[in-house]
Amino acid sequence: MPNNIPYKINLSESELPKFWLNLQAYLPEKLPPMLNPATGQPVEADELRKVFTDAAVEQEMNTTDKYIEIPDEVRNFYRMYRPSPVVRAYNLEKLLDTPAEIYYKFEGTNTSGSHKLNSSVPQVYYAREQGLTSVTTETGAGQWGTALSMATGFFGLDLLVYMVKTSYEQKPHRKDLMETYGAQVIPSPSDTTEVGRRILKDHPGTGGSLGCAISEAVEIALSRENCRYLLGSVMNHVLLHQSVIGLEAKAALDKYNITPDIVIGCLGGGSNFGGLIAPYMAERLQGKNNIQFLGVEPASCPTLTRGRYAYDFGDTGCMTPLIKMYTLGSGFMPSPNHAGGLRYHGMNPIVSKLKHDGYMDVIAYEQTKVFQAAKLFCKSEGNLPAPESNHALCAAIDEAIKCRETGEKKKILFGLTGTGFFDMSAYQSFNNGTMTDYIPTDEDIELGLSSLPKV
Amino acid sequence: MPNNIPYKINLSESELPKFWLNLQAYLPEKLPPMLNPATGQPVEADELRKVFTDAAVEQEMNTTDKYIEIPDEVRNFYRMYRPSPVVRAYNLEKLLDTPAEIYYKFEGTNTSGSHKLNSSVPQVYYAREQGLTSVTTETGAGQWGTALSMATGFFGLDLLVYMVKTSYEQKPHRKDLMETYGAQVIPSPSDTTEVGRRILKDHPGTGGSLGCAISEAVEIALSRENCRYLLGSVMNHVLLHQSVIGLEAKAALDKYNITPDIVIGCLGGGSNFGGLIAPYMAERLQGKNNIQFLGVEPASCPTLTRGRYAYDFGDTGCMTPLIKMYTLGSGFMPSPNHAGGLRYHGMNPIVSKLKHDGYMDVIAYEQTKVFQAAKLFCKSEGNLPAPESNHALCAAIDEAIKCRETGEKKKILFGLTGTGFFDMSAYQSFNNGTMTDYIPTDEDIELGLSSLPKV
Repeated sequence: MPNNIPYKINLSESELPKFWLNLQAYLPEKLPPMLNPATGQPVEADELRKVFTDAAVEQEMNTTDKYIEIPDEVRNFYRMYRPSPVVRAYNLEKLLDTPAEIYYKFEGTNTSGSHKLNSSVPQVYYAREQGLTSVTTETGAGQWGTALSMATGFFGLDLLVYMVKTSYEQKPHRKDLMETYGAQVIPSPSDTTEVGRRILKDHPGTGGSLGCAISEAVEIALSRENCRYLLGSVMNHVLLHQSVIGLEAKAALDKYNITPDIVIGCLGGGSNFGGLIAPYMAERLQGKNNIQFLGVEPASCPTLTRGRYAYDFGDTGCMTPLIKMYTLGSGFMPSPNHAGGLRYHGMNPIVSKLKHDGYMDVIAYEQTKVFQAAKLFCKSEGNLPAPESNHALCAAIDEAIKCRETGEKKKILFGLTGTGFFDMSAYQSFNNGTMTDYIPTDEDIELGLSSLPKV
Repeated sequence: MPNNIPYKINLSESELPKFWLNLQAYLPEKLPPMLNPATGQPVEADELRKVFTDAAVEQEMNTTDKYIEIPDEVRNFYRMYRPSPVVRAYNLEKLLDTPAEIYYKFEGTNTSGSHKLNSSVPQVYYAREQGLTSVTTETGAGQWGTALSMATGFFGLDLLVYMVKTSYEQKPHRKDLMETYGAQVIPSPSDTTEVGRRILKDHPGTGGSLGCAISEAVEIALSRENCRYLLGSVMNHVLLHQSVIGLEAKAALDKYNITPDIVIGCLGGGSNFGGLIAPYMAERLQGKNNIQFLGVEPASCPTLTRGRYAYDFGDTGCMTPLIKMYTLGSGFMPSPNHAGGLRYHGMNPIVSKLKHDGYMDVIAYEQTKVFQAAKLFCKSEGNLPAPESNHALCAAIDEAIKCRETGEKKKILFGLTGTGFFDMSAYQSFNNGTMTDYIPTDEDIELGLSSLPKV
């Protein structure tokens, strides 16, 4: 061990957080309210409760409580796989010959393979407490569906998953995994919903999108008794649950008096990034630190770097309330050549607000670049990360290389959100040179934005 | 937390073992020597060094040193993923309503997904120290090849993997994973070796076997400069490296004054089982405990329950020295319906000797039974284990159910050797009811044993 800091900084189970941190309550300005698209007026909680669980609605709108208690049963599940380690990437530092210190918070050691389990467990727990018997959801790359199936398997609820058809066909084993936990999985768009049938009619042969799958899952939740729709990113209550990542990371680094100079995460719907930065950003918003926060998104779906801060639907079918967020327009169709997740047109409202108000930076990377970085990481650190995580680690490597040039001893913390076990076809295409990049043209972006509703 | 014992008993990095335990040195009687099949005489170390690394040969034949130091560079790699946790399966206990305490040592949290990394790292380290530039190996289910590719990627050696053709075709992503780490992967039997061409001629259309793949890898190692053959199980030096599992498990349980009443592991080549039991068995051989040791093998490849303790070749091509072990005969062809590993005709010599001398018990399970157990485990403990590990956890569950009936508060420790992420087709066949069982007939067994060499 090069010095006092171990390779893995572990917390004990007694150090598992007892509260989530509600970043929303730290914002200097309140978030703009969700709007009812028909009336243009703020949505009432009662309307939301038809789709979402009571607890989700309450947490979504909670702008005052800075800390929210993690229920005992949720903490007991967390104990099976948390606290997760903060790893000092000594071997990567050596390979890069950098004076920087690189740390990553690793969320890929549980069976779901990603951070998504942090939110699926409380969401299903609350659903059961509410007396619900089934839940629906959508999944793209499959991480969220897997995590949710583990939670419904554990708490004994039925689960119906609409899986984006392209992923369903490319990753059959994701379906097998969810089915092992008792879930039913349907490729989307499907003929099981009105919205699905409409999309199939308008776009025959479509591979689907996250936005379509959300519409289908929401339709079913609205039409069934004792059923609600759960989702794995974008919304504020999901980011709340993911704050467990940042709280643990900070507690681990604090043990060694380490304050990162920069915190880096990948951006899909924003919940992992928001969760990772939560405690540090809360301090920053109180003027207690000057940490740089860097979000990394794919150049093929550049929500924060090229999108607009505007009211938009969360789904393609235009069934959700309007949310003020960075968006490429719910009509934006991400290029199918893009591997992995991070393909969503919108962004979590808190993250959007932070970006809009200048509290964070964003960068967009092409996928071949992030897979190059992943190869360096694989060989030096053993871990094989998910394509999403590769975006964050690529930025961390770029920072560390800059430090080599300037001599700065920056402390870099990034989020390694999951394992790449289920993404080997992406690695295969990178290995054999068939992976391509795609940057939407200005026309593509304008076309997407033209789908924005008039508010 | 139901009582004082946490869900996960973690060791700190400073508690990572500094020495492997050499179980061979504790045996009351020395192991019978390996024999040269041509002469019937004990094999000289010099002959073995043509195939194996110098360190492997030295460790293989070391009957005196009870502890062997783990090199610093190996410990530094271990630190990236070890110590691995001992998990108390509280939620499984609750589901089974058993007074037993169930603990499992979990080796599935690293990217290779299994315990195999524990031996690939030192083997490649020693190969590099010896000045070798490339190594060869075989892999069946793919765990060993993956683990070895991580180690060669890290230490900078070339790697050529012969992968059993059936697995190569069923699990293309295993190949992608190994290639990501820089390995070259060839389906076996192949036309790249003499033995491969012979097997292809004699058995056109064969799906291959571990025994064939070993023959091919050995042939290449013998024919290349600065190249040796490494293998992931069966031999004593592999079991030595795997003792890190048992040493950590014992150190963790000792912290809470827990001595297991029974230690359970699955049996393929024997190294994971031998490594898990090592420190407890060493005590047992000194009369210091009375722990029961239970090995679990698949009924479709019942090496210890229906094989013979005899001299046999380690490979189908009859290129290795003769080893005294339990064996079904190198001509035994395991049924292709069997999922996962544990398909080898032979067994580690130390484990064979312990079985022969009455120090351990063995049981054989059919695969549908162990997958049923896995489903119970998945839903209660989150983890999705590898098919191999399911054998051990099935026996642990059976023990715990017996305790429910007798009221005994047995402490059960089993080895959960890896994740099932790459075995979803097996879970799929179990989920959809197409998984079948196969028990070799007495004629099958006799046919295999008829291939035993006359010594």
